[in-house]
Amino acid sequence: MRAFYKLPRLYVTGEIVQGDDIVLPKDQGHFLSRVLRRTVGDQVRLFNGNDGEYLASITHISKRETVLSAGEQIRTLEPPPDIWLLFAPIKHKRNVFIVEKATELGAALIQPVITARTTSRINIDKMQAHVIEAAEQTERLDLPQIRDAQKLEHILAGWDKSRTLVFADEGGDAKPAATALAKIKAPAAILIGPEGGFTADERAMLRAKPYCVPISLGPRILRADTAAAATLALWQAVSGDW
Amino acid sequence: MRAFYKLPRLYVTGEIVQGDDIVLPKDQGHFLSRVLRRTVGDQVRLFNGNDGEYLASITHISKRETVLSAGEQIRTLEPPPDIWLLFAPIKHKRNVFIVEKATELGAALIQPVITARTTSRINIDKMQAHVIEAAEQTERLDLPQIRDAQKLEHILAGWDKSRTLVFADEGGDAKPAATALAKIKAPAAILIGPEGGFTADERAMLRAKPYCVPISLGPRILRADTAAAATLALWQAVSGDW
Repeated sequence: MRAFYKLPRLYVTGEIVQGDDIVLPKDQGHFLSRVLRRTVGDQVRLFNGNDGEYLASITHISKRETVLSAGEQIRTLEPPPDIWLLFAPIKHKRNVFIVEKATELGAALIQPVITARTTSRINIDKMQAHVIEAAEQTERLDLPQIRDAQKLEHILAGWDKSRTLVFADEGGDAKPAATALAKIKAPAAILIGPEGGFTADERAMLRAKPYCVPISLGPRILRADTAAAATLALWQAVSGDW
Repeated sequence: MRAFYKLPRLYVTGEIVQGDDIVLPKDQGHFLSRVLRRTVGDQVRLFNGNDGEYLASITHISKRETVLSAGEQIRTLEPPPDIWLLFAPIKHKRNVFIVEKATELGAALIQPVITARTTSRINIDKMQAHVIEAAEQTERLDLPQIRDAQKLEHILAGWDKSRTLVFADEGGDAKPAATALAKIKAPAAILIGPEGGFTADERAMLRAKPYCVPISLGPRILRADTAAAATLALWQAVSGDW
């Protein structure tokens, strides 16, 4: 099994069936031949987010197209724990970071949230490319779903109350993260506020929900991207699949 | 106390003495007047990494210089726990990320490490600017020390055996991170390998040291920057000051 880790790993859309030909999109073909310098006969691994991982071998490379022949399945899908990440978009560079880290740290769903102090937008199409790249890197077999941004009130209005919603709160009585997260099992979600934090109204609204748990992330002020990665890692370590 | 959080926070070199004038470097003066649009009479906060935090008010702004008058001390220095981060340099963008996150997550010292598979260099002077910026943001009163890169063998040869060295290891018998880190108290250090990981020789060398503890960071492969932020956050949550 571990020897396969050395083989390039590509995300493809559509079904993977042993023996079938798969034509790669031009940029992936280029990446494989020019950047990784693979040629006809070399092996790669394929995943599509739903069907585990397959071996494949390169049967044709030209400037115009790269064709693979799908081989045997080498891993079956084991979806990561049911943990969501909700975050208020910030600068583009930091949004990319959050989406990449959420994918590596095993978030099942990524939901951008518009709060009162959210001043940035997010381009979901661009984020999807970062999700795929991070999933390829991290040996994940599924892709986290990424949703369009929605207002916080709207998200809470449709919330499934069986899913605990953890949010980082600077209020004095929030519990230390490790203790609180150890008690919060899947399905769960983590909500990270914007730069400048939640408003007093938003905090009151969140704290009034029976499914919301405020946590504290220590004495230093963390940027939103740091808070997102730290909370997801912590949850995976104490209640997830680490 | 919390009201002060709204005031800009600047790192200055040199002593801060109540009543003394402090002339800001040109870029900080520009940032204060042009970006933050502060004028004479406005208050700011100052820290120098050693003496806690002081109020100061702007007494002069011109194109040529910005002068502050130092006021009373509002916070005394409480250094974060004695945790170090050792990491093998990767791409510049990701080195910046590691240094920024290490500062936010309370590392006391940042040590770049050259391992067998380390192919990237790191510019410590540039990193120092990111340390300062992150410390300003994160309400930290000290700055992590950042050292010049050194070879792994050299670092281990001079290691103080009372400091536990945690390293992320993909070997099968490494303990889950949360359990292992909960037992590791300061002084401690976290070592993150390069892309491609440690060599078999390096892993054997590390594992032979009585002060080294291998930990596992779950079933997904994490990039080095993710592993650094995740491990530091976890340690702070279970054995540090969170």
